[in-house]
Amino acid sequence: MWYHATQKTKLAEPVTVLDDRMEECVVLFCCVEKLDEKNPDKVVASAKQNILQRLEKLRVRKVLIYPYAHLTSTLGSPEVAFLILKGLEEVLQKENIDVKRAPFGWYKEFEIRGKGHPLADLSMTICPYEGTECDFTCPYCHHPFKEADAVHACQQAPDCPGICSGKQVTIGERR
Amino acid sequence: MWYHATQKTKLAEPVTVLDDRMEECVVLFCCVEKLDEKNPDKVVASAKQNILQRLEKLRVRKVLIYPYAHLTSTLGSPEVAFLILKGLEEVLQKENIDVKRAPFGWYKEFEIRGKGHPLADLSMTICPYEGTECDFTCPYCHHPFKEADAVHACQQAPDCPGICSGKQVTIGERR
Repeated sequence: MWYHATQKTKLAEPVTVLDDRMEECVVLFCCVEKLDEKNPDKVVASAKQNILQRLEKLRVRKVLIYPYAHLTSTLGSPEVAFLILKGLEEVLQKENIDVKRAPFGWYKEFEIRGKGHPLADLSMTICPYEGTECDFTCPYCHHPFKEADAVHACQQAPDCPGICSGKQVTIGERR
Repeated sequence: MWYHATQKTKLAEPVTVLDDRMEECVVLFCCVEKLDEKNPDKVVASAKQNILQRLEKLRVRKVLIYPYAHLTSTLGSPEVAFLILKGLEEVLQKENIDVKRAPFGWYKEFEIRGKGHPLADLSMTICPYEGTECDFTCPYCHHPFKEADAVHACQQAPDCPGICSGKQVTIGERR
């Protein structure tokens, strides 16, 4: 994986290194979601645990954390997102993983080569709930959630354009 | 974008071309979700419309459809998924778009280079509902859905492992 930070968004963290690369590693395309704001410490701890298990399976000790806001339509606040990604970097370093983190809030040119073996690609969702609070599961994303957190009423009706505009979020456009 | 189909899954479509590439194009990482089974024709038509709008904005007429099951935790049946992806290929070809489609149901090694400008990355969710039927929105993925389609009760409770196992689906593992 190689990247080059091309352009700042309004949320850009200050960085001096604009280019970096890592080879024979796991690239973690990460985004922080709105519900993660409820329990950032739990999210970091659980992410760490699940990532370590996966790294062990792959026998890899090198990780590139790559912020990728397009994986959700309900982005968390930039402040919490940055804290969680930095927190993840720190807890993985403490486990003697070789960790790099691509800059937050930048547009990035990148090049990646995926290996194509059966364990090469995986997606993971880290649950911010403690586990006993949720009473529904979304028919789309399968996330467990609390009924009280579900937003009532379809914002697309009565003239749904057939696309969920919430998903059309780019880093630069979101508020 | 370049790919090489390395290994079949049980769902693999028969193909003779195992390697291909496309340059200066839009790569559509696609997956078909369970709810899309309700209305495959509507999904194809709406995807076409939304993709054409985006291509016009980018002034690009080249598209690589790349099946990528990891984008959802609620995969649709392989039969419907294959029909929708082939349908999308056909309708885009009819619009004189230069279309390639990577094989369905194969593990693939790939290499991609993303340009890093503000319009370079986008995610889109195509809604299978006609627009007036949905009454809730998922707090995670923001999808509108019908209350009757929501699955009641958290399968992780009372001892949630902190990760939604539904998301840990790889092409090879799903049934």
